[in-house]
Amino acid sequence: MVVELISVGTELLLGNITNTNVRFLAQECAQLGLSCYYQVTVGDNADRIASVFKQALGRSDIVILSGGLGPTEGDLTKDVVADVLGRNLKEDPHTKQRIEDNFRKSMFRQIPENNWRMAQVPEGALVMDNHFGQAPGLILKTEDGKTVILLPGPPGELCPLFEEQIKPYLAKMTSQVICSKMVKVCGLAESYIAQELEDLIDHQANPTVATYAKTGEIHVRVTARAATSSEAEKLLHPVLEEIIRRLGDHIYTTEEKVTLEDVLIGMLKERNLSITTAESCTGGLLSGRMINVAGASRVIRECFVTYSNEAKQEILGVQEKTLRDHGAVSPETAEEMARGAAQAAHADMALSVTGIAGPDGGTKEKPVGLVYIGCSLLGRTEVIKCNFSGSRQRVRQLTVEKALDFGRLCLKKHER
Amino acid sequence: MVVELISVGTELLLGNITNTNVRFLAQECAQLGLSCYYQVTVGDNADRIASVFKQALGRSDIVILSGGLGPTEGDLTKDVVADVLGRNLKEDPHTKQRIEDNFRKSMFRQIPENNWRMAQVPEGALVMDNHFGQAPGLILKTEDGKTVILLPGPPGELCPLFEEQIKPYLAKMTSQVICSKMVKVCGLAESYIAQELEDLIDHQANPTVATYAKTGEIHVRVTARAATSSEAEKLLHPVLEEIIRRLGDHIYTTEEKVTLEDVLIGMLKERNLSITTAESCTGGLLSGRMINVAGASRVIRECFVTYSNEAKQEILGVQEKTLRDHGAVSPETAEEMARGAAQAAHADMALSVTGIAGPDGGTKEKPVGLVYIGCSLLGRTEVIKCNFSGSRQRVRQLTVEKALDFGRLCLKKHER
Repeated sequence: MVVELISVGTELLLGNITNTNVRFLAQECAQLGLSCYYQVTVGDNADRIASVFKQALGRSDIVILSGGLGPTEGDLTKDVVADVLGRNLKEDPHTKQRIEDNFRKSMFRQIPENNWRMAQVPEGALVMDNHFGQAPGLILKTEDGKTVILLPGPPGELCPLFEEQIKPYLAKMTSQVICSKMVKVCGLAESYIAQELEDLIDHQANPTVATYAKTGEIHVRVTARAATSSEAEKLLHPVLEEIIRRLGDHIYTTEEKVTLEDVLIGMLKERNLSITTAESCTGGLLSGRMINVAGASRVIRECFVTYSNEAKQEILGVQEKTLRDHGAVSPETAEEMARGAAQAAHADMALSVTGIAGPDGGTKEKPVGLVYIGCSLLGRTEVIKCNFSGSRQRVRQLTVEKALDFGRLCLKKHER
Repeated sequence: MVVELISVGTELLLGNITNTNVRFLAQECAQLGLSCYYQVTVGDNADRIASVFKQALGRSDIVILSGGLGPTEGDLTKDVVADVLGRNLKEDPHTKQRIEDNFRKSMFRQIPENNWRMAQVPEGALVMDNHFGQAPGLILKTEDGKTVILLPGPPGELCPLFEEQIKPYLAKMTSQVICSKMVKVCGLAESYIAQELEDLIDHQANPTVATYAKTGEIHVRVTARAATSSEAEKLLHPVLEEIIRRLGDHIYTTEEKVTLEDVLIGMLKERNLSITTAESCTGGLLSGRMINVAGASRVIRECFVTYSNEAKQEILGVQEKTLRDHGAVSPETAEEMARGAAQAAHADMALSVTGIAGPDGGTKEKPVGLVYIGCSLLGRTEVIKCNFSGSRQRVRQLTVEKALDFGRLCLKKHER
């Protein structure tokens, strides 16, 4: 079954707010096994709402409209839908009572006249009580079997109303279950992955495989649909296994909610190892990412931001000669930083970062984007060289990604 | 002139990501004085992209398509647009060279064959270099005078490309000059600001005044339009002055591109003062933000992440008794952390952070979101208490914002 999402509101066309509703509804519909081909946003204008609504009815089985159910003259969705479907609006006594009760509880003495507009519903509509606002949700069936759902615009009303009442209604209508995994990859280009997985991406309709570029990472989503969740998993499993076989150690997780820092901190916890960092150009972003993980205190005691050469010498014990002969941005300095940080913090592992984030400070030999990352693990130190491009911010973010992944790979390698 | 925004990407239809691009583009277009009646999202499907593109050409003067310009077989936007407009795709040597150069700088050895797809452009297209990615932006003029603009999907590429190259192009088309200022405010609620500025927001069409909520900040954009930039500035100036008068010291800048960390580091540079930080729950995010500022090395030598109690004692000299009597999350600890950090780094100013970011670790007396921020400036230390709400991530981000602003206000106060 095909669903179409229509968002109504001039504030969306002006960019005053981000449309979080449409993402929420899209996710929920995908989970229900509904296909969505179009999302349309339109302003508070009767003719244009009518035109997109008619088009949606022509090409989709279920049309969900959000917004424009409020009490003002600018709230037109219900009137337009009733008009297009040839229904009259009539007062719903139950909703009228709810509005009255609500106002009695509130601090307002008088109910503004236009509030009664919210109790008007198209004939034949199923009324879904809104527990977080006044305007109820509405479900209508058209004569040719299409389903039309109207939801209030505020996310605090729309989301619970959908979860509690609309979703169970739709679940009964569809009879599909969706099962999906997110394969998260570091250190490979999107185009490389797309090529590697080309046959899986092109030739399969169920499960589907799609790649998404993130900063320093590529995510590959595998989604299967079936009548039951065990059937969906059975479809999904061989494709997931094949992707894991092809991309190997570059994959750090297959779980949607797991981050790269979760994996690194998790591996350290498992092995009962502690970690510290010594950062120059990233200035604390690396330790900041690691401390994203709730409970990181079990493996992190302290971290160092050594931005100046003096700090690198005093705190980490980097040799003056090293800095003089090779410069602060060099494999030698990265190595001494990592080793020194591990010693200073009595940590089992230390990640160090030194680089030229830009926009200034680059030379022909050491251009902007040149970064060295060191990893000292139980007395053994390795350094990698990276050449990133982009803004100062981007170079720093890519460096953090790479450092987290380098730590992960060093831990893996150590065990072999 | 009417603009229509088409977002291309199955990930949007599945709700995998929030469509922040469309909000950005809508805001920018509104600022340029363009009317927008429809925003449409469609998946990576040639027929459906063609159908929404044709419809948009029929009802709008300018069509902006974002997404689907990448190297994979699923990236179809360019092919579909060329097909609908009856143009051939041909290789753009300049873009090909840029892709080659980019890959040579990167860590990847071989350029995957499908990457050359990104160098293919429709005949007659104006090519706009993408400085943050590979796929360029493209501008096409149709035979009946419509303008078609293609932009890469990643927000980190789309936004700068639009700001730097598309916006000036569209501004010339609309023959209006836009002059705008961004009043950036910390420490006040959006609803308070909206009330304070209600008359300015409601009763003026030119300049327009609009508020935007950011994490820990509110931005107020004032935009004037006129035939010349001096006329636009003349319209803008009195409104800007009035806003500054009403919001006072809470404003840290009126410049779009200036960040809170820019202001703090700038003030320190001007006064020839150095700064350090001692962070617990923020774990380096505060120093990381400060080192966003190019040239921060003039005022930052080193910073500390003291996540454990031992580190607070050893590195910062926090008293064991203080930790025992008042706990790590207390005004006393925040004060000793700031003072100790300033001493350890020989810095004129030190910002300290200690709090409960959650999701666990809260108690009735010290709930999740309780944060103390210390500021030691030339021997004098002050502490503020904050109660934030939201996820671990959000509490940490709000803490960083507040700490930067606290530093700024302490510097201001010191001079009075």
